[in-house]
Amino acid sequence: MKATEGKIGRVFVVRLEDGDVLPDCLEKFAKEKSIQCGHVILVGGIGGGEVVAGPRRSDEIPPDPVYMPVKGAYEVVGVGVIAPDKDGNPVLHIHASLGRGENVLTGCLRPGVTTWLVAEAIIYEITGVNAQRLPDDKSGFDLLEV
Amino acid sequence: MKATEGKIGRVFVVRLEDGDVLPDCLEKFAKEKSIQCGHVILVGGIGGGEVVAGPRRSDEIPPDPVYMPVKGAYEVVGVGVIAPDKDGNPVLHIHASLGRGENVLTGCLRPGVTTWLVAEAIIYEITGVNAQRLPDDKSGFDLLEV
Amino acid sequence: MKATEGKIGRVFVVRLEDGDVLPDCLEKFAKEKSIQCGHVILVGGIGGGEVVAGPRRSDEIPPDPVYMPVKGAYEVVGVGVIAPDKDGNPVLHIHASLGRGENVLTGCLRPGVTTWLVAEAIIYEITGVNAQRLPDDKSGFDLLEV
Repeated sequence: MKATEGKIGRVFVVRLEDGDVLPDCLEKFAKEKSIQCGHVILVGGIGGGEVVAGPRRSDEIPPDPVYMPVKGAYEVVGVGVIAPDKDGNPVLHIHASLGRGENVLTGCLRPGVTTWLVAEAIIYEITGVNAQRLPDDKSGFDLLEV
Repeated sequence: MKATEGKIGRVFVVRLEDGDVLPDCLEKFAKEKSIQCGHVILVGGIGGGEVVAGPRRSDEIPPDPVYMPVKGAYEVVGVGVIAPDKDGNPVLHIHASLGRGENVLTGCLRPGVTTWLVAEAIIYEITGVNAQRLPDDKSGFDLLEV
Repeated sequence: MKATEGKIGRVFVVRLEDGDVLPDCLEKFAKEKSIQCGHVILVGGIGGGEVVAGPRRSDEIPPDPVYMPVKGAYEVVGVGVIAPDKDGNPVLHIHASLGRGENVLTGCLRPGVTTWLVAEAIIYEITGVNAQRLPDDKSGFDLLEV
């Protein structure tokens, strides 16, 4: 376990429109606002896309992701962390739980999901931290380094 | 996507008692404390009520909500956004995932759910933002405008 | 419902390593950093351990917890509250939703779960609040008192 200490900076309350693609639109916004590191919460509707829900085999590295399609409109609650990649672009790692009747999916929104009707997000800027997402050869992912 | 910028204000750590109804009790508290906008996290037990888990038909506007009853005591983790309605009353839009053994529900707590034994919440006041929940004729919901 | 008012203090962005046990490692970190009260968010992978998902019987006090084993690697999204116990040690009460393909578990991480590959956490220190986890004879749990 490693940690880096910082402070809260700006706070943004965000309204997402029907069709807005996550996490892309929040990453674009973070770049426009020069948010390097931060925390995101998400409350709203998701109407399509895919969620990564674990690796196919738990003991295989690099992992082979299980993609679950989002079929129909789901309620979503999510939490994520923004940190810059090696080129300084803010990358949002956001996990969420999605529900539609008895169907529930919990996973990573990385492949891209689409806002259904409306979603609300809050972005907290975290300043003064030393954090970056750097390529990890073993897993094939960009992993947070602090 | 639209956004409004603000700052963190007061922070409240809240203990909910058995039987306290969500989101009502947190909205009443927000009103008493003159919290207009904010962010809520919820960790605890839920023993009854209903959750909205998506619309019956994903392509029908206005949506016909699917109400899922909460039968028995569930663990809950939730995240929400407070913003005032057109009359200036703080309204909490909170989504959560609830688990009881193999049963999981993820949805919106708007219809009202009841605290089982105990729950903990944190309320972050967000000041300086321009956000409001205004009636949307098309969907029939109050939607966040920023 | 009872509440105590405070402010945001330090913020820590944390990288958890494969095998790190939650909530233990974050409680140890909180103690090292003299964080008494706080808020934690968690995004990452979980590869083992157990989750408490409700009581066996909803109307029985003290409750008999339902332990659900975590079999294989799951995606996780969690939120928790740190408050000191009667001896002043920070205790993290964290609930999370875990997903692996169609399998979803939502519950309390108290029995201990193990990080798979990587996880990210943010810890917000909350200062100036009067909150403690004290033994409750009836339920047999330490409950948050504010």
